[in-house]
Amino acid sequence: MLDCLLNGEISSHLPVTDRGLHYGDGVFETMAVFNGTPRFWQYHIDRLNIGCESIGLPQVAQSVLLREVQTVSAGHSECVVKVLITRGETGRGYAPPARPQSNRLVISFPFPGGLDVVSRRGLNTRICDLRLGIQPRLAGIKHLNRLEQVMARAEWTDPTIDEGILLDREDHVISATAGNIFLVSNERLLTPRMDRCGVRGVMRHAVLQAFMPVTEQRRISLDMLPEADEVFMTNAVRGIVPIIRIGHWEYDIGPQTRKLLVWLDQQ
Amino acid sequence: MLDCLLNGEISSHLPVTDRGLHYGDGVFETMAVFNGTPRFWQYHIDRLNIGCESIGLPQVAQSVLLREVQTVSAGHSECVVKVLITRGETGRGYAPPARPQSNRLVISFPFPGGLDVVSRRGLNTRICDLRLGIQPRLAGIKHLNRLEQVMARAEWTDPTIDEGILLDREDHVISATAGNIFLVSNERLLTPRMDRCGVRGVMRHAVLQAFMPVTEQRRISLDMLPEADEVFMTNAVRGIVPIIRIGHWEYDIGPQTRKLLVWLDQQ
Repeated sequence: MLDCLLNGEISSHLPVTDRGLHYGDGVFETMAVFNGTPRFWQYHIDRLNIGCESIGLPQVAQSVLLREVQTVSAGHSECVVKVLITRGETGRGYAPPARPQSNRLVISFPFPGGLDVVSRRGLNTRICDLRLGIQPRLAGIKHLNRLEQVMARAEWTDPTIDEGILLDREDHVISATAGNIFLVSNERLLTPRMDRCGVRGVMRHAVLQAFMPVTEQRRISLDMLPEADEVFMTNAVRGIVPIIRIGHWEYDIGPQTRKLLVWLDQQ
Repeated sequence: MLDCLLNGEISSHLPVTDRGLHYGDGVFETMAVFNGTPRFWQYHIDRLNIGCESIGLPQVAQSVLLREVQTVSAGHSECVVKVLITRGETGRGYAPPARPQSNRLVISFPFPGGLDVVSRRGLNTRICDLRLGIQPRLAGIKHLNRLEQVMARAEWTDPTIDEGILLDREDHVISATAGNIFLVSNERLLTPRMDRCGVRGVMRHAVLQAFMPVTEQRRISLDMLPEADEVFMTNAVRGIVPIIRIGHWEYDIGPQTRKLLVWLDQQ
């Protein structure tokens, strides 16, 4: 059973001079694959290509990538596949090569267990101390510079806390450490804009597409959190997950969240 | 002739699950090594250990690292050695393992040619469009999240431009893309604070230590640039390099910069 392809070849190792390692110079996707079919494949491909274009990498051939995703997920009824595209090998120095030979990694991981249980009871979250830096040039894309998320996730070890909520330097609500956030307010679905920091998640995009008339991307200030009727997180692997607590604020798993859970089951 | 060690073993490859690749979860040093002796070794070790502590990695044994730096630079009268410490291998997810087995890479590169020529004529620079995000949690340390520097460096291809000057979102002067910056003003050496973004460079630190009575770390606003008497860049490999132009502003290679060049030759 294969679990990693580097540029189409079986490999568990990457050259030490890869710019993904040295600079985080690349983008990635993490997708749920069920019986060889990546969920929301087109959205993943679209975001990957937007990310590549945004940092000046060549586009990825969709058919090649799909074949590789299916190869590493062969034999698994469900698994997680991570795709990484880096600017390839380099000498020293930040200047990108004029014609980069990007490296393409496709890796499969076991599907995480226990998601159903957590989804049914909802997430217990806290607000992280770390504030995301504002960087419009890289906002929205899923690039390999994720040290902010690592540092934010390292803030707690209490196993009863499932996730952390990230604010930016101006105390706008942005996301969870590993997912986007939606607030339900008067039956409308509000989610932060991803124009200054954060990642335009694929599950977030799917919700925005499917429920367009009742969704709104906007700045969300901290004081909107206690006023929300419902809160949920989106993540390409975990799907839609109710949030039942953010710090001292508690939420019920309400009708809008339940409606979205039913919708996702039907995808 | 060896050129790369992974945890002390000859290797040109790294496991694809390394967190340095997936998240930029690690720190690095780039040093000039002359006849087996790394220049400003203690400053490099100190910064590396501060970086490790700052992101929660175990300290590196100095004697082990020195031996490895000497191993990869054996046979070279001059070379550049890059040390990377990552949080090691991981499954999926940002949460750092409770007891990370860090990976240690020590790689030698040829010493860049033509530095003397550029140093004598001085650097022609421009101000980058990209503004650095402000992130005090990661400021100062030399971590592996360097996509801002890559994007800034990718802004120009004109070979007559040597370097780009980076400002933060509030238009404070921070650094070059690959070095720190000093302004000479009334015989004082002013350099930006590295408390909100940027890297505390080793050569910058050496200058601050050696010329302490006349140095000052402070906020430097854009309008201080045209008023400066002299400007120079510091970089652990390139040393001290005069800047003769920033956009439309021109500078002479003045007496303070010359004094520092003489000092560095004596180190």
